[in-house]
Amino acid sequence: MSKKNLAILLRARMKSNNPTKFSLSQFPEIQSNSNTQENHSRDHIVQNSNEGIANSSDFGTKQRVYDVVRETMHSAISGSKTGVLDITLSDFQEGYFSLSLEDREKLLLVLAKEYDVNREQVRELVKQYLGLENPASDDKDALSSVFYRIERNLRHALRPTYEVLFERLNTHPGGLRFLSILRADLLSILTKENSPSLRTLDSFLKEKLGMWLSPATLELHQITWDDPASLLEKIVAYEAVHPISNLLDLKRRLGIGRRCFGYFHPSIPGEPLIFIEVALMETVAQTIQEVLWDNPPIPENQATCALFYSISSTQPGLAGINLGKFLIKRVITLVKKDMPHVSTFATLSPIPGFMQWLLSKLSSQSRFAEDERGTQSNSPSSTFSEKVLLPEEEQALMSLSGDSSSGSNGMEVLLKLLSVKNCDWATSPRILPVLEPILMRLCARYLLQEKKRGKALDSVANFHLQNGAMVERINWMADRSEKGICQSGGIMVNYVYRLENIEDYAQSYFGSDKIHASPGIHSRL
Amino acid sequence: MSKKNLAILLRARMKSNNPTKFSLSQFPEIQSNSNTQENHSRDHIVQNSNEGIANSSDFGTKQRVYDVVRETMHSAISGSKTGVLDITLSDFQEGYFSLSLEDREKLLLVLAKEYDVNREQVRELVKQYLGLENPASDDKDALSSVFYRIERNLRHALRPTYEVLFERLNTHPGGLRFLSILRADLLSILTKENSPSLRTLDSFLKEKLGMWLSPATLELHQITWDDPASLLEKIVAYEAVHPISNLLDLKRRLGIGRRCFGYFHPSIPGEPLIFIEVALMETVAQTIQEVLWDNPPIPENQATCALFYSISSTQPGLAGINLGKFLIKRVITLVKKDMPHVSTFATLSPIPGFMQWLLSKLSSQSRFAEDERGTQSNSPSSTFSEKVLLPEEEQALMSLSGDSSSGSNGMEVLLKLLSVKNCDWATSPRILPVLEPILMRLCARYLLQEKKRGKALDSVANFHLQNGAMVERINWMADRSEKGICQSGGIMVNYVYRLENIEDYAQSYFGSDKIHASPGIHSRL
Repeated sequence: MSKKNLAILLRARMKSNNPTKFSLSQFPEIQSNSNTQENHSRDHIVQNSNEGIANSSDFGTKQRVYDVVRETMHSAISGSKTGVLDITLSDFQEGYFSLSLEDREKLLLVLAKEYDVNREQVRELVKQYLGLENPASDDKDALSSVFYRIERNLRHALRPTYEVLFERLNTHPGGLRFLSILRADLLSILTKENSPSLRTLDSFLKEKLGMWLSPATLELHQITWDDPASLLEKIVAYEAVHPISNLLDLKRRLGIGRRCFGYFHPSIPGEPLIFIEVALMETVAQTIQEVLWDNPPIPENQATCALFYSISSTQPGLAGINLGKFLIKRVITLVKKDMPHVSTFATLSPIPGFMQWLLSKLSSQSRFAEDERGTQSNSPSSTFSEKVLLPEEEQALMSLSGDSSSGSNGMEVLLKLLSVKNCDWATSPRILPVLEPILMRLCARYLLQEKKRGKALDSVANFHLQNGAMVERINWMADRSEKGICQSGGIMVNYVYRLENIEDYAQSYFGSDKIHASPGIHSRL
Repeated sequence: MSKKNLAILLRARMKSNNPTKFSLSQFPEIQSNSNTQENHSRDHIVQNSNEGIANSSDFGTKQRVYDVVRETMHSAISGSKTGVLDITLSDFQEGYFSLSLEDREKLLLVLAKEYDVNREQVRELVKQYLGLENPASDDKDALSSVFYRIERNLRHALRPTYEVLFERLNTHPGGLRFLSILRADLLSILTKENSPSLRTLDSFLKEKLGMWLSPATLELHQITWDDPASLLEKIVAYEAVHPISNLLDLKRRLGIGRRCFGYFHPSIPGEPLIFIEVALMETVAQTIQEVLWDNPPIPENQATCALFYSISSTQPGLAGINLGKFLIKRVITLVKKDMPHVSTFATLSPIPGFMQWLLSKLSSQSRFAEDERGTQSNSPSSTFSEKVLLPEEEQALMSLSGDSSSGSNGMEVLLKLLSVKNCDWATSPRILPVLEPILMRLCARYLLQEKKRGKALDSVANFHLQNGAMVERINWMADRSEKGICQSGGIMVNYVYRLENIEDYAQSYFGSDKIHASPGIHSRL
């Protein structure tokens, strides 16, 4: 395929760019791709135009088609395991695509309810189980084969019938990808309708997918300019952290001074489930501009640092499944082997949760302050009140606000400033220098001290700490894009992976929730 | 590696050849390899000499080593999921190999009992479950999230703790192969000791392995002379149906007029889990001699028949897991693509169960006959009695036996003849022609009419019928080897796969237990 054609192809692909409905993973750094939802609804539209049915206004036809697909689904579940089944499964996949989202929802509800756990059987076994002599007795030898059998039967009976459909699709060509699309539908349906049975269907499918996509089954490949256009266009389409603007840009991302690695699953060929972009640098970059160069700043053989500047996952239907696991470790091993002179492995990462956390903290705290001013007595709320700002920060902020309308205390001023539409504060030479030390200190606190169930509150931080990284440095105005400013006040963070520490750090983060950080960061607190 | 070295290597490999302890699969055609048990105990011996422990007479040391391995196993199960775990899992694998079979048995018992299901928790959840309003009510919408949650928790609680170890090993380098060795140990232990907990451990592991080795995860490769010696030596070692005698023989199996395909799993590289050998012929071979030629009888482009003459599985630890599923179908597709002029796909298969069935049938029936002669009244046993032989067969057999001592009726004569050590009957020009029509008729009956739970009693027959084959022809004295004579009276059978029928036949065999057979076979009944 000529570059011209590829370029046209890619431009075509770039067009569709409406925001996706749901976050692609627990950690925003692994970005939801703005096209995948589009892709998959395109699949659906294409299918429709093929079938010319879901679009058809003829309700009768639609109903008949729905009935056929439902019938196929039934045979796909109840049919015996023969070659004929392959045809049925293919028919079901095709039929499913031909359905409108409404009909898909109807179908999934049927699946969730009609093909659920056989509860009569479960209750029967449960009674038998309780009937047996208490197995919790210390004499474990007392356990009879009968007991083990009932236990096993119970375990099996508790599996919903729709597990059959999932497992058959998993071993069916294209089935795994189909399941991830089906789950994408499920997730988008769940945002509108909260049905316990559908949520159960989803969490069950999620569990299965997580198992089938275990790191053992994923293959790490370096993606280069020599890869097929069909693969490269997906990189363009899915790169969501720092969108790829054109063909030249793509070639740069794969060219000298850069690397791109993807996790592939044998059943989903030609399409990475997740990919990571690496820049080879002399030092750890502080701003995204340093990374998105047009021409490599240094020859590769002078690089001492491999910077992970983007991780994108591609399947909306795999949301919540940690595909990144082991990815970074494997990439480090690969790069190290290829370039022994690279000694530092770092990231330049967003801090997706920072502003959200700060704004809610500020609003709650200024409310407490309000109350306290109102009732001089210690109102119950005040027990939750804390000093968010240092005295000098309080002062600096108050000095910023001419009139009292802008706020009766520092927190209110800060809250107002940060809440202004399209983040004007970031462009004001008067405000910026005042906010810098405040936001940098609060950001360090957010990263190092704000926890959820013992783990870092920030999902990206949690991801890298899990993998054995440490918080090295936070960088002011490292991402001046509107998203960067609104999400994290333009601040970006370098997580650093030091080979000699990865295991220990991961271990101590898991074991004792210890967040390793550089002295530089600690000094900001 | 020079051919000379390879030859030496292979000869070395050929030496060890003691019969394996346990059948490798439900269908003997997929033969247990006589070396694998040896291999794996060799692994173990090698390990020992490395460690120099299990061989050591110092009981104290052995005990300490055992304790260490047990400790490692505990951390492998209870440790948190970090990189450190990798080291623990590797240590456990190494440690396990260093144990004597006795200590492995001790360890597996600990695993089966100490890391079993948490039954207190199960009973607790079961009570909660029964506490909830009857969910079997028609109003499925009534099911609350609470109910689903408890159900899910119960499902999880019913998983034995040792599942963690299996799953972690599965995603650990070399872990899958280790698990198959561990299961091989389990199976050999179970032949000696029948412990419910160990049997439960085994069936649970078998279930897991079956899932992890689903056809979706297996890759089909053609094995050629260009493959690495390390792979080829395994073909030599594992081929068990028609052993490969030397390097030249191996080269022939992979050379002109033949094909060899293997199922590989990404986690067990360089070693097929199962492989199938194909001979390209002009017609469907009737005897194994026709297949094991030294020089191809015809040029490949004149071949119209692809004959599957050997299927060998390589991992004793995967006994009972049907790896052959889809294998034949995939191979047919591959061969067809490569050689469109091949129109017939057939097997030349053993009938492993025939003689065993016939002998037990004869002995029981002649006992009934005995009784009937004794008590002229209809003894209850006589209700089970049937005429195994036709009158003319009865006559022919009696005429064979000079004196009455050799038997008072045809069945007894036949029984005596067939029971004689090293099957002399097969070499007697007097007896052979008499037995031929009788054994051929009874063999046809065995293949087409003797069922177990509706399916063919013969495991090989059942395997091929499942895959959509038909019983085409039985061949007299097709395998004159001692094994062939004793197992199936020297008879071999051709199963034929006709592309246009595969799906229908498989379906009707599954659905209505219909065994498709050629008129030729039917006429023998």
